[in-house]
Amino acid sequence: MPSSFSHSLRVRWSEVDAYGVVFNGNYLNYFDVAITEYFRNLGLQFTNPEAIGGEFYVRKATLEYHGPARFDDLLDIQVRCGRIGNSSLQLLLLITRNGELLVSGEIIYVNTDPATRTAAPVSPSLRQRIEAFENPSD
Amino acid sequence: MPSSFSHSLRVRWSEVDAYGVVFNGNYLNYFDVAITEYFRNLGLQFTNPEAIGGEFYVRKATLEYHGPARFDDLLDIQVRCGRIGNSSLQLLLLITRNGELLVSGEIIYVNTDPATRTAAPVSPSLRQRIEAFENPSD
Amino acid sequence: MPSSFSHSLRVRWSEVDAYGVVFNGNYLNYFDVAITEYFRNLGLQFTNPEAIGGEFYVRKATLEYHGPARFDDLLDIQVRCGRIGNSSLQLLLLITRNGELLVSGEIIYVNTDPATRTAAPVSPSLRQRIEAFENPSD
Amino acid sequence: MPSSFSHSLRVRWSEVDAYGVVFNGNYLNYFDVAITEYFRNLGLQFTNPEAIGGEFYVRKATLEYHGPARFDDLLDIQVRCGRIGNSSLQLLLLITRNGELLVSGEIIYVNTDPATRTAAPVSPSLRQRIEAFENPSD
Repeated sequence: MPSSFSHSLRVRWSEVDAYGVVFNGNYLNYFDVAITEYFRNLGLQFTNPEAIGGEFYVRKATLEYHGPARFDDLLDIQVRCGRIGNSSLQLLLLITRNGELLVSGEIIYVNTDPATRTAAPVSPSLRQRIEAFENPSD
Repeated sequence: MPSSFSHSLRVRWSEVDAYGVVFNGNYLNYFDVAITEYFRNLGLQFTNPEAIGGEFYVRKATLEYHGPARFDDLLDIQVRCGRIGNSSLQLLLLITRNGELLVSGEIIYVNTDPATRTAAPVSPSLRQRIEAFENPSD
Repeated sequence: MPSSFSHSLRVRWSEVDAYGVVFNGNYLNYFDVAITEYFRNLGLQFTNPEAIGGEFYVRKATLEYHGPARFDDLLDIQVRCGRIGNSSLQLLLLITRNGELLVSGEIIYVNTDPATRTAAPVSPSLRQRIEAFENPSD
Repeated sequence: MPSSFSHSLRVRWSEVDAYGVVFNGNYLNYFDVAITEYFRNLGLQFTNPEAIGGEFYVRKATLEYHGPARFDDLLDIQVRCGRIGNSSLQLLLLITRNGELLVSGEIIYVNTDPATRTAAPVSPSLRQRIEAFENPSD
Protein backbone atom coordinates (compact mmCIF):
# COMPACT_ATOMS: atom_id res chain seq x y z
CA MET A 1 0.00 0.00 0.00
CA PRO A 2 1.89 3.08 -1.23
CA SER A 3 0.15 5.47 1.10
CA SER A 4 -0.59 8.92 -0.15
CA PHE A 5 -1.59 10.57 3.10
CA SER A 6 -0.45 10.42 6.69
CA HIS A 7 -1.48 12.17 9.89
CA SER A 8 0.38 12.13 13.21
CA LEU A 9 -0.97 12.23 16.73
CA ARG A 10 0.21 11.52 20.21
CA VAL A 11 -1.37 8.96 22.55
CA ARG A 12 -3.19 10.64 25.44
CA TRP A 13 -3.16 9.49 29.05
CA SER A 14 -6.94 8.96 29.04
CA GLU A 15 -6.61 6.58 26.07
CA VAL A 16 -4.36 4.09 27.84
CA ASP A 17 -5.77 1.32 30.04
CA ALA A 18 -4.57 -0.42 33.19
CA TYR A 19 -2.31 -2.69 31.13
CA GLY A 20 -0.48 0.48 30.05
CA VAL A 21 -1.55 0.16 26.41
CA VAL A 22 -4.09 2.01 24.26
CA PHE A 23 -7.60 0.57 24.75
CA ASN A 24 -8.54 -1.30 21.58
CA GLY A 25 -11.62 0.83 20.83
CA ASN A 26 -9.61 4.04 20.77
CA TYR A 27 -7.96 3.12 17.48
CA LEU A 28 -11.30 3.70 15.76
CA ASN A 29 -11.13 7.22 17.16
CA TYR A 30 -7.61 7.60 15.73
CA PHE A 31 -8.88 6.31 12.36
CA ASP A 32 -11.67 8.88 12.48
CA VAL A 33 -9.26 11.73 13.24
CA ALA A 34 -6.98 10.71 10.37
CA ILE A 35 -9.89 10.34 7.95
CA THR A 36 -11.05 13.85 8.86
CA GLU A 37 -7.57 15.10 7.98
CA TYR A 38 -7.50 13.05 4.77
CA PHE A 39 -10.61 14.87 3.58
CA ARG A 40 -9.34 18.23 4.81
CA ASN A 41 -6.28 17.61 2.64
CA LEU A 42 -8.69 17.21 -0.29
CA GLY A 43 -10.26 20.55 0.63
CA LEU A 44 -13.40 18.96 2.11
CA GLN A 45 -15.04 18.66 5.51
CA PHE A 46 -16.07 15.02 5.78
CA THR A 47 -18.92 15.57 8.24
CA ASN A 48 -20.48 18.47 6.35
CA PRO A 49 -23.25 16.90 4.23
CA GLU A 50 -23.33 19.83 1.83
CA ALA A 51 -19.60 19.79 1.20
CA ILE A 52 -19.35 16.04 0.80
CA GLY A 53 -22.67 15.18 -0.79
CA GLY A 54 -24.38 13.38 2.10
CA GLU A 55 -23.84 11.90 5.56
CA PHE A 56 -21.31 9.07 5.62
CA TYR A 57 -21.90 6.30 8.16
CA VAL A 58 -19.56 3.45 8.95
CA ARG A 59 -20.96 0.18 7.56
CA LYS A 60 -18.06 -2.06 8.51
CA ALA A 61 -14.82 -1.70 10.44
CA THR A 62 -12.00 -4.21 10.67
CA LEU A 63 -8.92 -3.79 12.84
CA GLU A 64 -5.89 -6.02 13.20
CA TYR A 65 -3.65 -5.37 16.16
CA HIS A 66 0.03 -6.17 15.61
CA GLY A 67 1.56 -4.45 18.62
CA PRO A 68 0.49 -2.13 21.42
CA ALA A 69 0.80 1.65 21.44
CA ARG A 70 1.62 3.21 24.80
CA PHE A 71 1.13 6.56 26.50
CA ASP A 72 2.85 9.46 24.78
CA ASP A 73 3.75 7.44 21.68
CA LEU A 74 3.80 9.51 18.51
CA LEU A 75 1.78 7.58 15.93
CA ASP A 76 1.55 7.95 12.18
CA ILE A 77 -1.78 7.09 10.62
CA GLN A 78 -1.75 6.43 6.90
CA VAL A 79 -5.02 6.70 5.00
CA ARG A 80 -5.70 5.50 1.48
CA CYS A 81 -8.95 5.13 -0.40
CA GLY A 82 -9.05 1.54 -1.62
CA ARG A 83 -12.30 1.57 -3.55
CA ILE A 84 -15.21 3.85 -4.38
CA GLY A 85 -18.47 1.94 -4.91
CA ASN A 86 -21.81 3.28 -6.00
CA SER A 87 -22.67 4.58 -2.53
CA SER A 88 -19.69 3.33 -0.53
CA LEU A 89 -16.09 4.23 0.22
CA GLN A 90 -13.46 1.79 1.40
CA LEU A 91 -10.63 3.40 3.37
CA LEU A 92 -7.48 1.50 4.33
CA LEU A 93 -5.54 2.52 7.39
CA LEU A 94 -2.15 1.75 8.89
CA ILE A 95 -0.93 2.95 12.27
CA THR A 96 2.83 2.89 12.75
CA ARG A 97 5.30 4.11 15.36
CA ASN A 98 8.77 4.84 14.00
CA GLY A 99 7.98 2.63 11.05
CA GLU A 100 6.78 -0.32 13.15
CA LEU A 101 3.28 -1.47 12.21
CA LEU A 102 0.92 -1.46 15.21
CA VAL A 103 -2.59 -1.55 13.74
CA SER A 104 -4.00 -2.07 10.26
CA GLY A 105 -7.62 -1.54 9.40
CA GLU A 106 -10.36 -1.05 6.89
CA ILE A 107 -13.38 1.20 7.18
CA ILE A 108 -16.30 0.96 4.79
CA TYR A 109 -18.58 3.98 4.71
CA VAL A 110 -21.97 4.24 3.10
CA ASN A 111 -23.22 7.61 1.94
CA THR A 112 -26.77 8.49 2.96
CA ASP A 113 -29.23 11.18 2.09
CA PRO A 114 -29.69 13.24 5.30
CA ALA A 115 -33.39 13.72 4.51
CA THR A 116 -34.32 10.11 3.83
CA ARG A 117 -31.55 8.33 5.78
CA THR A 118 -31.23 5.88 2.91
CA ALA A 119 -28.19 5.04 0.79
CA ALA A 120 -27.24 7.67 -1.76
CA PRO A 121 -24.67 7.63 -4.58
CA VAL A 122 -21.23 9.06 -3.91
CA SER A 123 -21.31 12.47 -5.55
CA PRO A 124 -19.37 12.74 -8.83
CA SER A 125 -17.30 15.65 -7.52
CA LEU A 126 -16.22 13.71 -4.44
CA ARG A 127 -15.37 10.67 -6.56
CA GLN A 128 -13.35 12.81 -8.90
CA ARG A 129 -11.48 14.55 -6.14
CA ILE A 130 -10.49 11.30 -4.42
CA GLU A 131 -9.46 9.66 -7.68
CA ALA A 132 -7.34 12.65 -8.67
CA PHE A 133 -5.54 12.44 -5.35
CA GLU A 134 -5.05 8.68 -5.24
CA ASN A 135 -4.12 8.25 -8.89
CA PRO A 136 -2.42 11.51 -9.85
CA SER A 137 -0.81 9.99 -12.94
CA ASP A 138 -4.12 8.94 -14.54
CA MET B 1 -26.66 16.10 52.44
CA PRO B 2 -29.60 13.75 52.90
CA SER B 3 -29.56 12.48 49.36
CA SER B 4 -32.84 11.68 47.76
CA PHE B 5 -31.62 9.89 44.66
CA SER B 6 -28.88 7.44 43.86
CA HIS B 7 -27.75 5.63 40.72
CA SER B 8 -25.24 2.77 40.52
CA LEU B 9 -22.77 1.94 37.78
CA ARG B 10 -19.70 -0.18 37.33
CA VAL B 11 -16.30 1.18 36.29
CA ARG B 12 -15.37 0.09 32.76
CA TRP B 13 -11.94 -1.04 31.61
CA SER B 14 -11.70 1.82 29.11
CA GLU B 15 -12.24 4.34 31.92
CA VAL B 16 -9.19 3.32 33.92
CA ASP B 17 -5.75 4.75 33.17
CA ALA B 18 -2.22 3.35 33.37
CA TYR B 19 -2.12 4.06 37.13
CA GLY B 20 -5.02 1.59 37.44
CA VAL B 21 -7.50 4.26 38.56
CA VAL B 22 -10.39 6.02 36.84
CA PHE B 23 -9.17 8.96 34.73
CA ASN B 24 -10.23 12.18 36.46
CA GLY B 25 -12.31 13.46 33.55
CA ASN B 26 -14.49 10.35 33.48
CA TYR B 27 -16.22 11.33 36.71
CA LEU B 28 -17.98 14.13 34.81
CA ASN B 29 -19.33 11.40 32.57
CA TYR B 30 -20.55 9.49 35.64
CA PHE B 31 -22.16 12.69 36.94
CA ASP B 32 -23.91 13.11 33.60
CA VAL B 33 -25.22 9.55 33.62
CA ALA B 34 -26.56 9.94 37.16
CA ILE B 35 -28.17 13.31 36.38
CA THR B 36 -29.92 11.72 33.39
CA GLU B 37 -31.32 9.09 35.76
CA TYR B 38 -32.26 11.73 38.34
CA PHE B 39 -34.48 13.41 35.74
CA ARG B 40 -35.82 10.11 34.46
CA ASN B 41 -36.89 9.43 38.03
CA LEU B 42 -38.84 12.71 37.87
CA GLY B 43 -40.48 11.51 34.66
CA LEU B 44 -38.40 13.78 32.42
CA GLN B 45 -35.77 13.42 29.73
CA PHE B 46 -33.12 15.99 30.62
CA THR B 47 -31.75 16.43 27.10
CA ASN B 48 -35.15 16.82 25.43
CA PRO B 49 -35.70 20.58 25.17
CA GLU B 50 -39.47 20.20 24.85
CA ALA B 51 -39.80 17.99 27.92
CA ILE B 52 -37.53 20.07 30.09
CA GLY B 53 -38.22 23.59 28.83
CA GLY B 54 -34.93 24.33 27.07
CA GLU B 55 -31.36 23.11 26.54
CA PHE B 56 -29.33 22.92 29.75
CA TYR B 57 -25.60 23.62 29.42
CA VAL B 58 -23.02 23.19 32.15
CA ARG B 59 -21.86 26.61 33.36
CA LYS B 60 -19.55 25.41 36.12
CA ALA B 61 -18.29 22.08 37.40
CA THR B 62 -16.34 21.41 40.57
CA LEU B 63 -14.94 18.04 41.57
CA GLU B 64 -13.09 17.02 44.71
CA TYR B 65 -11.29 13.71 44.60
CA HIS B 66 -11.05 11.91 47.94
CA GLY B 67 -9.97 8.47 46.80
CA PRO B 68 -9.53 6.55 43.55
CA ALA B 69 -12.08 4.25 41.94
CA ARG B 70 -10.65 1.21 40.18
CA PHE B 71 -11.69 -1.12 37.40
CA ASP B 72 -14.89 -3.06 38.07
CA ASP B 73 -15.76 -1.05 41.20
CA LEU B 74 -19.48 -0.69 41.75
CA LEU B 75 -20.11 3.00 42.43
CA ASP B 76 -23.13 4.78 43.88
CA ILE B 77 -23.77 8.28 42.62
CA GLN B 78 -26.04 10.41 44.73
CA VAL B 79 -27.70 13.42 43.12
CA ARG B 80 -29.50 16.24 44.87
CA CYS B 81 -30.70 19.59 43.58
CA GLY B 82 -29.16 22.22 45.83
CA ARG B 83 -30.70 25.34 44.34
CA ILE B 84 -32.93 26.48 41.50
CA GLY B 85 -32.12 29.99 40.30
CA ASN B 86 -33.93 32.06 37.72
CA SER B 87 -32.28 30.24 34.81
CA SER B 88 -29.88 27.94 36.64
CA LEU B 89 -29.84 24.63 38.48
CA GLN B 90 -27.25 23.59 41.03
CA LEU B 91 -26.83 19.84 41.38
CA LEU B 92 -24.75 18.28 44.15
CA LEU B 93 -23.13 14.90 43.62
CA LEU B 94 -21.41 12.29 45.76
CA ILE B 95 -19.72 9.17 44.45
CA THR B 96 -19.22 6.41 46.98
CA ARG B 97 -18.07 2.78 46.98
CA ASN B 98 -19.47 0.68 49.79
CA GLY B 99 -20.14 3.86 51.70
CA GLU B 100 -16.62 5.29 51.24
CA LEU B 101 -16.64 8.76 49.69
CA LEU B 102 -14.52 8.91 46.52
CA VAL B 103 -15.63 12.06 44.70
CA SER B 104 -17.86 15.00 45.59
CA GLY B 105 -18.96 17.57 43.09
CA GLU B 106 -21.21 20.40 42.05
CA ILE B 107 -22.61 21.07 38.60
CA ILE B 108 -24.28 24.36 37.72
CA TYR B 109 -26.46 24.29 34.63
CA VAL B 110 -27.91 27.24 32.78
CA ASN B 111 -31.09 26.80 30.80
CA THR B 112 -31.05 28.24 27.28
CA ASP B 113 -33.57 28.84 24.59
CA PRO B 114 -32.62 26.49 21.72
CA ALA B 115 -33.63 29.11 19.15
CA THR B 116 -31.69 32.06 20.54
CA ARG B 117 -28.99 30.19 22.51
CA THR B 118 -29.41 32.72 25.30
CA ALA B 119 -30.31 32.15 28.95
CA ALA B 120 -33.95 31.30 29.58
CA PRO B 121 -35.93 30.93 32.83
CA VAL B 122 -36.30 27.48 34.35
CA SER B 123 -39.82 26.46 33.43
CA PRO B 124 -42.36 26.58 36.28
CA SER B 125 -43.31 22.95 35.77
CA LEU B 126 -39.70 21.77 36.02
CA ARG B 127 -39.17 23.88 39.13
CA GLN B 128 -42.29 22.47 40.70
CA ARG B 129 -41.40 18.90 39.92
CA ILE B 130 -37.89 19.19 41.38
CA GLU B 131 -39.14 20.97 44.50
CA ALA B 132 -41.84 18.38 45.08
CA PHE B 133 -39.23 15.65 44.91
CA GLU B 134 -36.56 17.33 47.03
CA ASN B 135 -38.93 18.68 49.70
CA PRO B 136 -41.76 16.16 49.81
CA SER B 137 -42.97 17.39 53.20
CA ASP B 138 -43.59 20.98 52.03
CA MET C 1 -26.36 -17.93 16.83
CA PRO C 2 -28.31 -19.23 19.83
CA SER C 3 -26.75 -16.86 22.29
CA SER C 4 -26.11 -18.07 25.76
CA PHE C 5 -25.34 -14.76 27.45
CA SER C 6 -26.65 -11.22 27.22
CA HIS C 7 -25.83 -7.96 29.01
CA SER C 8 -27.85 -4.74 28.86
CA LEU C 9 -26.66 -1.15 29.00
CA ARG C 10 -27.98 2.27 28.22
CA VAL C 11 -26.39 4.67 25.72
CA ARG C 12 -24.78 7.64 27.47
CA TRP C 13 -24.92 11.24 26.30
CA SER C 14 -21.13 11.41 25.94
CA GLU C 15 -21.20 8.42 23.57
CA VAL C 16 -23.40 10.07 20.96
CA ASP C 17 -21.97 12.31 18.25
CA ALA C 18 -23.22 15.40 16.45
CA TYR C 19 -25.29 13.22 14.07
CA GLY C 20 -27.21 12.08 17.17
CA VAL C 21 -25.96 8.48 16.93
CA VAL C 22 -23.42 6.46 18.89
CA PHE C 23 -19.88 7.11 17.63
CA ASN C 24 -18.70 3.97 15.81
CA GLY C 25 -15.69 3.38 18.08
CA ASN C 26 -17.84 3.23 21.21
CA TYR C 27 -19.29 -0.13 20.23
CA LEU C 28 -15.91 -1.70 20.96
CA ASN C 29 -16.30 -0.29 24.46
CA TYR C 30 -19.77 -1.88 24.69
CA PHE C 31 -18.29 -5.19 23.47
CA ASP C 32 -15.63 -4.93 26.17
CA VAL C 33 -18.20 -4.27 28.90
CA ALA C 34 -20.31 -7.25 27.80
CA ILE C 35 -17.27 -9.54 27.58
CA THR C 36 -16.32 -8.56 31.13
CA GLU C 37 -19.81 -9.60 32.21
CA TYR C 38 -19.63 -12.82 30.17
CA PHE C 39 -16.57 -13.87 32.15
CA ARG C 40 -18.05 -12.68 35.45
CA ASN C 41 -20.97 -14.99 34.69
CA LEU C 42 -18.41 -17.82 34.43
CA GLY C 43 -17.04 -16.80 37.81
CA LEU C 44 -13.91 -15.18 36.38
CA GLN C 45 -12.39 -11.71 36.14
CA PHE C 46 -11.20 -11.42 32.55
CA THR C 47 -8.51 -8.82 33.22
CA ASN C 48 -6.99 -10.62 36.20
CA PRO C 49 -4.06 -12.61 34.76
CA GLU C 50 -4.02 -15.01 37.70
CA ALA C 51 -7.71 -15.81 37.49
CA ILE C 52 -7.75 -16.22 33.73
CA GLY C 53 -4.32 -17.69 33.06
CA GLY C 54 -2.68 -14.72 31.30
CA GLU C 55 -3.30 -11.29 29.78
CA PHE C 56 -5.70 -11.35 26.85
CA TYR C 57 -5.09 -8.79 24.09
CA VAL C 58 -7.34 -8.12 21.13
CA ARG C 59 -5.72 -9.46 17.95
CA LYS C 60 -8.55 -8.66 15.57
CA ALA C 61 -11.89 -6.87 15.76
CA THR C 62 -14.61 -6.78 13.13
CA LEU C 63 -17.79 -4.74 13.40
CA GLU C 64 -20.74 -4.54 11.03
CA TYR C 65 -23.13 -1.67 11.55
CA HIS C 66 -26.73 -2.41 10.59
CA GLY C 67 -28.50 0.54 12.21
CA PRO C 68 -27.65 3.40 14.56
CA ALA C 69 -28.14 3.41 18.32
CA ARG C 70 -29.19 6.73 19.82
CA PHE C 71 -28.96 8.49 23.17
CA ASP C 72 -30.73 6.70 26.00
CA ASP C 73 -31.39 3.55 23.98
CA LEU C 74 -31.38 0.39 26.05
CA LEU C 75 -29.16 -2.10 24.24
CA ASP C 76 -28.76 -5.84 24.65
CA ILE C 77 -25.33 -7.25 23.93
CA GLN C 78 -25.18 -10.97 23.31
CA VAL C 79 -21.83 -12.72 23.73
CA ARG C 80 -20.93 -16.20 22.59
CA CYS C 81 -17.58 -17.94 22.38
CA GLY C 82 -17.26 -19.17 18.81
CA ARG C 83 -13.93 -20.96 19.01
CA ILE C 84 -11.08 -21.63 21.41
CA GLY C 85 -7.75 -22.04 19.66
CA ASN C 86 -4.41 -22.97 21.16
CA SER C 87 -3.77 -19.46 22.47
CA SER C 88 -6.76 -17.59 21.09
CA LEU C 89 -10.43 -17.00 21.82
CA GLN C 90 -13.01 -15.95 19.25
CA LEU C 91 -15.99 -14.11 20.71
CA LEU C 92 -19.09 -13.32 18.66
CA LEU C 93 -21.22 -10.32 19.57
CA LEU C 94 -24.64 -8.99 18.65
CA ILE C 95 -26.06 -5.66 19.76
CA THR C 96 -29.82 -5.34 19.53
CA ARG C 97 -32.48 -2.85 20.61
CA ASN C 98 -35.88 -4.37 21.21
CA GLY C 99 -34.88 -7.29 19.02
CA GLU C 100 -33.64 -5.14 16.13
CA LEU C 101 -30.05 -5.93 15.16
CA LEU C 102 -27.82 -2.84 15.26
CA VAL C 103 -24.26 -4.13 15.33
CA SER C 104 -22.67 -7.54 14.90
CA GLY C 105 -19.04 -8.25 15.60
CA GLU C 106 -16.22 -10.62 16.23
CA ILE C 107 -13.31 -10.17 18.62
CA ILE C 108 -10.28 -12.44 18.53
CA TYR C 109 -8.14 -12.40 21.65
CA VAL C 110 -4.70 -13.87 22.07
CA ASN C 111 -3.55 -14.95 25.49
CA THR C 112 -0.09 -13.77 26.53
CA ASP C 113 2.26 -14.52 29.36
CA PRO C 114 2.48 -11.30 31.40
CA ALA C 115 6.19 -11.91 32.06
CA THR C 116 7.33 -12.55 28.50
CA ARG C 117 4.54 -10.73 26.58
CA THR C 118 4.48 -13.62 24.12
CA ALA C 119 1.58 -15.89 23.17
CA ALA C 120 0.63 -18.47 25.77
CA PRO C 121 -1.81 -21.41 25.62
CA VAL C 122 -5.34 -20.88 26.88
CA SER C 123 -5.36 -22.52 30.30
CA PRO C 124 -7.15 -25.89 30.50
CA SER C 125 -9.41 -24.66 33.30
CA LEU C 126 -10.54 -21.62 31.29
CA ARG C 127 -11.15 -23.80 28.24
CA GLN C 128 -13.17 -26.24 30.30
CA ARG C 129 -15.26 -23.55 31.93
CA ILE C 130 -16.15 -21.87 28.63
CA GLU C 131 -16.96 -25.20 26.95
CA ALA C 132 -19.16 -26.29 29.83
CA PHE C 133 -21.10 -23.04 29.54
CA GLU C 134 -21.42 -22.96 25.76
CA ASN C 135 -22.18 -26.66 25.30
CA PRO C 136 -24.01 -27.67 28.46
CA SER C 137 -25.37 -30.85 26.94
CA ASP C 138 -21.96 -32.31 26.08
CA MET D 1 -2.89 35.68 33.78
CA PRO D 2 0.12 36.30 31.52
CA SER D 3 0.35 32.74 30.33
CA SER D 4 3.77 31.30 29.69
CA PHE D 5 2.74 28.15 27.87
CA SER D 6 0.14 27.21 25.31
CA HIS D 7 -0.75 24.01 23.48
CA SER D 8 -3.11 23.68 20.51
CA LEU D 9 -5.41 20.84 19.58
CA ARG D 10 -8.35 20.23 17.33
CA VAL D 11 -11.77 19.05 18.53
CA ARG D 12 -12.46 15.47 17.43
CA TRP D 13 -15.77 14.15 16.15
CA SER D 14 -16.05 11.65 19.02
CA GLU D 15 -15.75 14.49 21.54
CA VAL D 16 -18.84 16.35 20.37
CA ASP D 17 -22.31 15.46 21.65
CA ALA D 18 -25.76 15.49 20.09
CA TYR D 19 -26.08 19.24 20.76
CA GLY D 20 -23.09 19.69 18.43
CA VAL D 21 -20.79 20.92 21.20
CA VAL D 22 -17.90 19.34 23.10
CA PHE D 23 -19.17 17.19 25.98
CA ASN D 24 -18.34 18.99 29.25
CA GLY D 25 -16.18 16.17 30.64
CA ASN D 26 -13.86 16.18 27.64
CA TYR D 27 -12.34 19.50 28.67
CA LEU D 28 -10.63 17.70 31.56
CA ASN D 29 -9.04 15.50 28.92
CA TYR D 30 -7.89 18.61 27.05
CA PHE D 31 -6.48 20.02 30.30
CA ASP D 32 -4.61 16.76 30.83
CA VAL D 33 -3.13 16.83 27.33
CA ALA D 34 -1.98 20.44 27.76
CA ILE D 35 -0.48 19.74 31.19
CA THR D 36 1.47 16.82 29.71
CA GLU D 37 2.87 19.25 27.14
CA TYR D 38 3.58 21.88 29.79
CA PHE D 39 5.82 19.41 31.60
CA ARG D 40 7.39 18.17 28.36
CA ASN D 41 8.31 21.78 27.70
CA LEU D 42 10.13 21.74 31.08
CA GLY D 43 11.95 18.59 29.96
CA LEU D 44 9.89 16.27 32.16
CA GLN D 45 7.40 13.45 31.69
CA PHE D 46 4.61 14.22 34.14
CA THR D 47 3.40 10.64 34.52
CA ASN D 48 6.84 9.14 35.08
CA PRO D 49 7.23 8.92 38.87
CA GLU D 50 11.02 8.78 38.67
CA ALA D 51 11.31 11.85 36.46
CA ILE D 52 8.84 13.93 38.42
CA GLY D 53 9.44 12.70 41.96
CA GLY D 54 6.17 10.81 42.57
CA GLU D 55 2.71 10.11 41.18
CA PHE D 56 0.54 13.20 40.87
CA TYR D 57 -3.20 12.72 41.40
CA VAL D 58 -5.88 15.32 40.86
CA ARG D 59 -7.26 16.49 44.21
CA LYS D 60 -9.63 19.14 42.89
CA ALA D 61 -10.79 20.34 39.48
CA THR D 62 -12.86 23.41 38.71
CA LEU D 63 -14.14 24.34 35.28
CA GLU D 64 -16.10 27.39 34.15
CA TYR D 65 -17.74 27.18 30.77
CA HIS D 66 -18.04 30.49 28.93
CA GLY D 67 -18.92 29.28 25.46
CA PRO D 68 -19.10 26.01 23.54
CA ALA D 69 -16.39 24.51 21.38
CA ARG D 70 -17.57 22.67 18.30
CA PHE D 71 -16.30 19.93 16.03
CA ASP D 72 -13.06 20.74 14.23
CA ASP D 73 -12.43 23.91 16.24
CA LEU D 74 -8.75 24.65 16.78
CA LEU D 75 -8.33 25.36 20.49
CA ASP D 76 -5.47 26.97 22.39
CA ILE D 77 -4.94 25.75 25.92
CA GLN D 78 -2.86 27.97 28.14
CA VAL D 79 -1.26 26.45 31.23
CA ARG D 80 0.31 28.29 34.11
CA CYS D 81 1.42 27.07 37.51
CA GLY D 82 -0.33 29.27 40.06
CA ARG D 83 1.13 27.88 43.27
CA ILE D 84 3.43 25.15 44.51
CA GLY D 85 2.50 23.92 47.99
CA ASN D 86 4.34 21.45 50.16
CA SER D 87 2.93 18.45 48.31
CA SER D 88 0.54 20.15 45.87
CA LEU D 89 0.58 21.96 42.54
CA GLN D 90 -2.09 24.39 41.40
CA LEU D 91 -2.36 24.71 37.62
CA LEU D 92 -4.48 27.37 35.95
CA LEU D 93 -5.92 26.74 32.50
CA LEU D 94 -7.61 28.77 29.80
CA ILE D 95 -9.10 27.38 26.62
CA THR D 96 -9.58 29.88 23.81
CA ARG D 97 -10.56 29.79 20.15
CA ASN D 98 -9.20 32.68 18.10
CA GLY D 99 -8.77 34.63 21.31
CA GLU D 100 -12.32 34.02 22.55
CA LEU D 101 -12.40 32.48 26.03
CA LEU D 102 -14.37 29.21 26.11
CA VAL D 103 -13.33 27.47 29.31
CA SER D 104 -11.28 28.46 32.36
CA GLY D 105 -10.18 26.04 35.01
CA GLU D 106 -8.02 25.12 37.91
CA ILE D 107 -6.50 21.74 38.68
CA ILE D 108 -4.94 20.95 42.04
CA TYR D 109 -2.62 17.96 42.08
CA VAL D 110 -1.22 16.21 45.11
CA ASN D 111 2.06 14.36 44.84
CA THR D 112 2.12 10.85 46.30
CA ASP D 113 4.76 8.28 47.03
CA PRO D 114 4.05 5.36 44.64
CA ALA D 115 5.05 2.85 47.33
CA THR D 116 2.93 4.17 50.19
CA ARG D 117 0.21 6.00 48.17
CA THR D 118 0.38 8.83 50.71
CA ALA D 119 1.14 12.50 50.15
CA ALA D 120 4.78 13.31 49.46
CA PRO D 121 6.60 16.66 49.15
CA VAL D 122 7.07 18.16 45.73
CA SER D 123 10.69 17.40 44.86
CA PRO D 124 13.08 20.38 45.09
CA SER D 125 14.22 19.89 41.51
CA LEU D 126 10.65 19.97 40.16
CA ARG D 127 9.88 23.06 42.23
CA GLN D 128 13.00 24.78 40.95
CA ARG D 129 12.29 23.93 37.35
CA ILE D 130 8.72 25.22 37.46
CA GLU D 131 9.74 28.40 39.27
CA ALA D 132 12.53 29.10 36.81
CA PHE D 133 10.05 28.80 33.96
CA GLU D 134 7.22 30.79 35.50
CA ASN D 135 9.40 33.57 36.94
CA PRO D 136 12.33 33.83 34.58
CA SER D 137 13.34 37.24 35.91
CA ASP D 138 13.84 36.05 39.49
